[in-house]
Amino acid sequence: MAELFRGLEHAAAGQHTALAEVLNALPFNEDGLLPAIAQDAESGEVLMLAWMNLAAIERTLAEGYACYYSRSRRTLWRKGETSGHLQALRSMRFDCDGDTILLKVAQTGPACHTNRASCFYLEVQGDRVAVLSEPER
Amino acid sequence: MAELFRGLEHAAAGQHTALAEVLNALPFNEDGLLPAIAQDAESGEVLMLAWMNLAAIERTLAEGYACYYSRSRRTLWRKGETSGHLQALRSMRFDCDGDTILLKVAQTGPACHTNRASCFYLEVQGDRVAVLSEPER
Repeated sequence: MAELFRGLEHAAAGQHTALAEVLNALPFNEDGLLPAIAQDAESGEVLMLAWMNLAAIERTLAEGYACYYSRSRRTLWRKGETSGHLQALRSMRFDCDGDTILLKVAQTGPACHTNRASCFYLEVQGDRVAVLSEPER
Repeated sequence: MAELFRGLEHAAAGQHTALAEVLNALPFNEDGLLPAIAQDAESGEVLMLAWMNLAAIERTLAEGYACYYSRSRRTLWRKGETSGHLQALRSMRFDCDGDTILLKVAQTGPACHTNRASCFYLEVQGDRVAVLSEPER
């Protein structure tokens, strides 16, 4: 774990560190990415997981809308740029060792590309997996 | 995206698929892992993100307690096996393309190794990052 995050483990509530220092200490993986969880700021529903590189984090903070890195297209991708289903940023958090990002967002329309509110619509029920919701129309 | 998940994109609510088929289609990464988000089933708070291989998924479902794969120790690790801070499984979901797992859990004690309720206690506030909570005593 990076020294900076280890040093914050016992920190009291309210202690601050410069954002630039934290961004500099983030333990990006070998592809330069970290997983980012998007959670609905109102309902608490977990909407999706995507990936961010440093540029995606900086653009998300600068513009106030979630911007991810597309591993398939190898490019930055503002969520909703084609669908209109934008995610307005309410807060950005890092976890204890800095290797996961949590975005609380105000989601416009459905978060999932299937037109469902959340991407997590497949639930294990005994020895079967059930579809929990239908695509919105 | 695996054919199975593509086929479920337009599925109606209530449709079922055999669990074994879904597990067989999961697109594990090159290390045989998928990210798993643990969310408090009651409060909706996102507690942590960890990693699961197929054995961790199967053990979690069989035992009813979250079991992850430790990338540093290269072994299965039942959450709370030393701390006692177990996560009783309430539900397990997969996302639209099967590459992320969402666990809803009943968390005993704090989820974070720092003794905080959630691992996500570092929040961006302008050009600083604030510590949101202190370790529990």
